[in-house]
Amino acid sequence: MAGLSGLRSIMEDVAASTADTSAEEWLNLSIGNPAAIPAAGAMWREALTRALEEDFDAVCGRYGPSRGSAGLIEAVNAYFHRAYGWDLGPENVVVGPGSQMVCFAAAALFCGPEPDGAHRRLVLPMVPDYTGYQGLCMHEDGIVGVAPQIVEDGEHGFRYALDLDALARLDDIGMLLISTPGNPTGRAMDRAELDGLIAFAEARDIPLVIDHAYGAPFPRIGEVPVEPVRHPHVVNCFSASKAGMPGERVGFAIGDPRYVGAIAAFLSNSVLHAAQLPQAALATTLREGTLDEVTRDAITPYYRGKRELMDALLMEQLPPDIAWRSHSGAGGMFAWVWIDHAWFDDVELYRRLKEKRVFVVPGRHFFVDATTTALPRGHATRCFRMSLSAPEKTLIDGVSRVAETLEEMRAEAN
Amino acid sequence: MAGLSGLRSIMEDVAASTADTSAEEWLNLSIGNPAAIPAAGAMWREALTRALEEDFDAVCGRYGPSRGSAGLIEAVNAYFHRAYGWDLGPENVVVGPGSQMVCFAAAALFCGPEPDGAHRRLVLPMVPDYTGYQGLCMHEDGIVGVAPQIVEDGEHGFRYALDLDALARLDDIGMLLISTPGNPTGRAMDRAELDGLIAFAEARDIPLVIDHAYGAPFPRIGEVPVEPVRHPHVVNCFSASKAGMPGERVGFAIGDPRYVGAIAAFLSNSVLHAAQLPQAALATTLREGTLDEVTRDAITPYYRGKRELMDALLMEQLPPDIAWRSHSGAGGMFAWVWIDHAWFDDVELYRRLKEKRVFVVPGRHFFVDATTTALPRGHATRCFRMSLSAPEKTLIDGVSRVAETLEEMRAEAN
Repeated sequence: MAGLSGLRSIMEDVAASTADTSAEEWLNLSIGNPAAIPAAGAMWREALTRALEEDFDAVCGRYGPSRGSAGLIEAVNAYFHRAYGWDLGPENVVVGPGSQMVCFAAAALFCGPEPDGAHRRLVLPMVPDYTGYQGLCMHEDGIVGVAPQIVEDGEHGFRYALDLDALARLDDIGMLLISTPGNPTGRAMDRAELDGLIAFAEARDIPLVIDHAYGAPFPRIGEVPVEPVRHPHVVNCFSASKAGMPGERVGFAIGDPRYVGAIAAFLSNSVLHAAQLPQAALATTLREGTLDEVTRDAITPYYRGKRELMDALLMEQLPPDIAWRSHSGAGGMFAWVWIDHAWFDDVELYRRLKEKRVFVVPGRHFFVDATTTALPRGHATRCFRMSLSAPEKTLIDGVSRVAETLEEMRAEAN
Repeated sequence: MAGLSGLRSIMEDVAASTADTSAEEWLNLSIGNPAAIPAAGAMWREALTRALEEDFDAVCGRYGPSRGSAGLIEAVNAYFHRAYGWDLGPENVVVGPGSQMVCFAAAALFCGPEPDGAHRRLVLPMVPDYTGYQGLCMHEDGIVGVAPQIVEDGEHGFRYALDLDALARLDDIGMLLISTPGNPTGRAMDRAELDGLIAFAEARDIPLVIDHAYGAPFPRIGEVPVEPVRHPHVVNCFSASKAGMPGERVGFAIGDPRYVGAIAAFLSNSVLHAAQLPQAALATTLREGTLDEVTRDAITPYYRGKRELMDALLMEQLPPDIAWRSHSGAGGMFAWVWIDHAWFDDVELYRRLKEKRVFVVPGRHFFVDATTTALPRGHATRCFRMSLSAPEKTLIDGVSRVAETLEEMRAEAN
């Protein structure tokens, strides 16, 4: 969990630095919050208000089922039937207080020490991936990240590709977990990668947990080359967070009862159930189609615009004679930039930018263990993440200071 | 977890039986929900509505701190300073999605296998206690309940007393957990019991987690002989659930940073944070004193009235020549009745009452392991629980059918 604790220190540093100052004094490109998109905010606020007005005693005044409220489960099943033709029963769904808690439950259930002395590990099939996954494992050395292949693309692009051969060399796997489109890179699995992972999960008889927090069918932050698929070994996780309601903590998983039922039992022992108001609100937006509308008309276009802006800024501002590349995943909420020079170090960039009142996130924390990640030329310490949810002016001024800082780092190294 | 899984089956039985029928066809005395008290409902609804209207983007549209929102932590600290003169900093408080999740985190952190091979157990110092505690432990044989002493009181009363000597004989304790006033009995610790437990926790250097879900300073369901105390080894847990907002899942713990900080870190790895709307609502009711008013003017009197009714019904209805006793704890949301006859069996009572369309909860599930509990004359299978939150008419008709059924059971045994 070195990556995680490192990131925590940074997030505490950001919070402490910006706490007593006007937000405008800092250019904060480190944020993980979704942007405040007015149409999304209006949708959630209206749905929450209706839930509160309609039947307070039945919603807020009673404990709910640990699997999720009957209304939300029905709405989920009808929605996925319409969207993908899936035939789901209540036994295929579990609602949690955010999909992170659902993943935590899965890792607690399917990974860890076995009675026979074996230790089943949580495996991230392609790092870099969401740092929060590194905290899901309560045991020492319980998590492994598989280094990707790096595919260069033109002069300033690149992408990561799944290394199935490296994955196949691992033993003692309890569960696979991957976000698609992913944090921090925006890379999204293509059909061949998804099929490869599913075949592997099936061969090993382990669950493949796929986190669609940024993906399909909502909030579609970026292009999604493959829609979610149903398979006995796949647990698909969905969340209302990146669609604009992270604060109320509601997400859900769809999968076979073998996995989903165990997760529901775990939730009933721990958190009891997700808050009822956001469950009711999510049910409304699924049932009435407003979540689809807002996704199509507001969320997807918003992030597409921000990504185009970011791509243009990088091309304009970064020194052309520096070997920089940005990850060309068309999805996700972040830009992921790789500076392929020996004089570059992600933590040093962070330190220098902080002096200029800019925050970015050093890339190493997303690799589980950057020091041992099998990537050429110190790749895992040569990347950084910038958030597309920041306001336009923050992106413009922030990238300009990043460019300035890169010039300085290069000059000092020569 | 035999007690827990047994209770789960019963709760599923209740849910399945009552699902497709009008609620009025059943007399459900098994419920764990607080009563829908109008003044409490109005308070929560208004506070939630204000939170939603005032600043949607900052409340629902952003991730919050894992320790809890700054506003709620400030409100908690100011409230406990006013109420008890406690001087607390933010490092003394952690908010969770319900106090059960806070207890789950504590059990995961402080109990379980140690690197040296020892196994630190979760100990309930006085069973019967809340069945949900039995699900907090993820390891086999990870939980132990200590049988109480039974103190008879008049012809039809009794109470349980803490058996500190039995507790002192246990080794390998990771944490102590107790509710006061308790579920299912309403027994509340007196000063000597509390002091004894604290001295024991200090001597063993383990946390004593005290769950005030029914107690002081809110919702004061019944009399509370001792207010909460601060001590380096005590973690005090409080919850909005029994004050009328169980569905939105918010509770918090106060204690030393050594324990509370670890719980906050655990929450950030698992559930991330509690939902923000109910946090904002709880902060409002603490800050403005409405929770204290509603506790004093509505919640405490409501349950006092229901308990007086229940006591009167038991005296009127239960056959005087049956050796029955009800637990004389003046607190709590339930009546706990002991039928001290060899012909009585709690599960058999449950079965027969179900045929009469009445649900009560068999007592054995609250003892962790009823078959090995060191209590005389099969005590652990000779008790049952009835909820005071049920409507008056349900109590009246329900107790009458219980009396009828006891007569039948006795007649058949003779």
